[in-house]
Amino acid sequence: MAFRPGTGATFTKAMATAGVNIRAIAQGSSERQISLMVEREECTKALRAAHAALALSDTQVSIVVLGSLAEAGKSMAGELLKLLAGTGRLAYRGSSPSALTGATAQLPTSLDGLAIDLKVTALASASASVLSNDGIDVASPNLWATASSSVGETLEGVTFAGCGYAQEGEDCLEMLTTHLLEDFNGNRIVIDATEDARVAEHYPRWLTLGAHIVSSNKLATGGPLATYRAAKNARSDANTQWLYECSGPGSGLPVISTLQDMQQTGDRIRRVEGVFSGTVNYVLESVRGGAPFSEAVAAAVAAGYAEPDPRDDLSCLDTQRKMLTLCREIGGMPDLEPEQLLVESLLPDALSGWEPDLASGKSVGEQLAEQLRPHDGAWAERVAAAEAEGGELKLIGRLDVEAGTAQLQLEVVPPTDTLARCEGMQNVIVVHSARYGAAAGGPLVLMGPAAGHELKAMGMFTDVLRLSRTLAEWNIPKIL
Amino acid sequence: MAFRPGTGATFTKAMATAGVNIRAIAQGSSERQISLMVEREECTKALRAAHAALALSDTQVSIVVLGSLAEAGKSMAGELLKLLAGTGRLAYRGSSPSALTGATAQLPTSLDGLAIDLKVTALASASASVLSNDGIDVASPNLWATASSSVGETLEGVTFAGCGYAQEGEDCLEMLTTHLLEDFNGNRIVIDATEDARVAEHYPRWLTLGAHIVSSNKLATGGPLATYRAAKNARSDANTQWLYECSGPGSGLPVISTLQDMQQTGDRIRRVEGVFSGTVNYVLESVRGGAPFSEAVAAAVAAGYAEPDPRDDLSCLDTQRKMLTLCREIGGMPDLEPEQLLVESLLPDALSGWEPDLASGKSVGEQLAEQLRPHDGAWAERVAAAEAEGGELKLIGRLDVEAGTAQLQLEVVPPTDTLARCEGMQNVIVVHSARYGAAAGGPLVLMGPAAGHELKAMGMFTDVLRLSRTLAEWNIPKIL
Repeated sequence: MAFRPGTGATFTKAMATAGVNIRAIAQGSSERQISLMVEREECTKALRAAHAALALSDTQVSIVVLGSLAEAGKSMAGELLKLLAGTGRLAYRGSSPSALTGATAQLPTSLDGLAIDLKVTALASASASVLSNDGIDVASPNLWATASSSVGETLEGVTFAGCGYAQEGEDCLEMLTTHLLEDFNGNRIVIDATEDARVAEHYPRWLTLGAHIVSSNKLATGGPLATYRAAKNARSDANTQWLYECSGPGSGLPVISTLQDMQQTGDRIRRVEGVFSGTVNYVLESVRGGAPFSEAVAAAVAAGYAEPDPRDDLSCLDTQRKMLTLCREIGGMPDLEPEQLLVESLLPDALSGWEPDLASGKSVGEQLAEQLRPHDGAWAERVAAAEAEGGELKLIGRLDVEAGTAQLQLEVVPPTDTLARCEGMQNVIVVHSARYGAAAGGPLVLMGPAAGHELKAMGMFTDVLRLSRTLAEWNIPKIL
Repeated sequence: MAFRPGTGATFTKAMATAGVNIRAIAQGSSERQISLMVEREECTKALRAAHAALALSDTQVSIVVLGSLAEAGKSMAGELLKLLAGTGRLAYRGSSPSALTGATAQLPTSLDGLAIDLKVTALASASASVLSNDGIDVASPNLWATASSSVGETLEGVTFAGCGYAQEGEDCLEMLTTHLLEDFNGNRIVIDATEDARVAEHYPRWLTLGAHIVSSNKLATGGPLATYRAAKNARSDANTQWLYECSGPGSGLPVISTLQDMQQTGDRIRRVEGVFSGTVNYVLESVRGGAPFSEAVAAAVAAGYAEPDPRDDLSCLDTQRKMLTLCREIGGMPDLEPEQLLVESLLPDALSGWEPDLASGKSVGEQLAEQLRPHDGAWAERVAAAEAEGGELKLIGRLDVEAGTAQLQLEVVPPTDTLARCEGMQNVIVVHSARYGAAAGGPLVLMGPAAGHELKAMGMFTDVLRLSRTLAEWNIPKIL
């Protein structure tokens, strides 16, 4: 059209991604108007989609976040919302995009080079939800206070619902699905920062209805094979995207994306080995430094390194899921079910049936530390024996594509080994492939700290950026 | 339209990216036809763009490759063409996409999950070019033989031109620019695998006319600041993309993309240090192992690790350009010109004016080795002195954002340092940031072999994949 190339393309694409069928189009040669005819019931959606696409200079991306939001700042999803708001491109309630100030402003995030604006259209914690297709002001400190006091009410276009993703009865997930369908904007990303099996089972529906997913939920990628495959198939059929860098080892380290790129560019992965649990590595190093095992576990909980229930770390089930996520990314690796991945638990057999007393007033971590105390001597001996051998006791994961095996167990690692370089809360991932092998001069090594909400939120936001780059319009010059 | 959602969007977007202005549109409510009116002179282009967009189920991406193609298989660009053909999605001369067989088929590349087809529309070596907007069969073993014997002729829609990118007189680069403009397909990627300043100076024009660029040319990113800035500005104005992972250290390692992601997600880079020259590292390790310096250099040339003229490695100018590329990616790092980055040359002062005798019949490497022989004793002493100190002599690059300094010099590295882990032809990159720092439990470490055409071609193809993901249509279900 006159003065603005690509207008017709932007207009018609907005209809396509919003799922609105165009019955007729007319643009006169004055190039000052373009008309579309659509079904009556799609009229409102079409009008709002056209407005969003044409009145705003940038592409709008709707974002739905699921996770432990009630403790914003202390949760990964809370950190992620801070990062989203830090872009200064988060629109809500018809306002211009807002930026956070103060502490967050010290770490401004950026959508530089991307002609997109973000809009959070729904938040769901385990027990409550906030919905608004006009956008939610996630920087508002009163958001959750209002949410819990105003259930069912609608305030400035924002709906507060008294149900969360973890509740069986009222189906919050069905409500979110309907909400996604009603969004006139076709560019939608669901961010799943939960560790919830039912949320993972909803992926196929969301991907099929045209939403993209960014997830850290290890039950989607490293749980039952059927759950993983259902989402992968839905993604292919619907031509949507699913990114999950943070489901594997390494938090924000680019592990899964690098493995995918290597294989798409023709490399073959042969072996992957590494330290995939920062928490266990921290505990074992503390014991090596003289701390009793039980106290090292308590310290890891106190420092926020371990899960609230540290049995999830010590049983290695969490790390097993990370490894399964890796396995499924590697061509030639058998499609393993969780029970096929051999795992050595760090929980003594005597505690296999133990359950914490939730009424005792003590945290699970404190109670577990008491139970572990009788085993401190055995752990000290085991760590000392490794040192006497001239090595270091570490929890090592190994995937071997040629042998078709995957295991996670305690090993004595010689100090010259790259795996021994992994200190404290770090993870290290060593990849041997056709290109990165002995002939080429060594494997590919990725190493870095891998714990805490901040690094994980950074990893998830990186996935959001990757996805947004594919949703932005390229090569059509912007007229500002 | 009937039976196929998104048709109007695909049609009108094809016009927008091809640069064709739509004067009028009409689609009747039968949903069986859609008509566009365009200027007469844009008619052919519009027709072919519409055909490519609508008749083929996948998005077409045109690719232009510049580099040392005459030695396909022995050059990075040759390796890259093998990888492109290995996808089985390379269309030419109206044929279906072709796959390579034999050796290449052992390493199949993949465009899985991407609804795109590739088409090589131009190849240019330093001295010859092949052009065809119908696509070139890069797997044809006779391509270059035909090219040199059939200059000026047109064979099955393919034009052979007797000029290459490095020639001053006949302007091959102007010819390529015109060729890019005439391409009816708006999705165009120029792959620059040269190390040529004039090619780098053409980036602004190509980016402005709507082409995207994937480059390894260090003169574009690590040469004069003005060249780099001109391309960056053109990219922003035209809303096109420029990726250059292989211009920095680490060949195929995801260094630049990781630094960009970290900063876009709100991290601040404080320091980067590492071993950025695999060739120099290999030579110093050989001397440590007992080899004379001159022989180690000759061995590096013979093994294909060093540049054909190893002075480019020993003078450290090549590594300086990689470091400048890194500097310019790091927010808060001053905009350094090449002369502001302190570099220690490994070429003896006595050889600063030396030039090889090109008529002697001996290679530059052999001649240089002879010149270096008198200095073998001094190098052996220097390496031994480092060992006597309990360390290892390594060429270390350091960028310090807070101090505003950048330098590349020989240092004695203690064996406990991560930098000392870097063996043979490897590179290691250690990144200290606000998130990856002492508080978080250590820096981010990327390490791996970083030499040879294969790893670099893999890195460039990874950039092509990243770019292609942004050109593919998402969220509009494919009807096959």
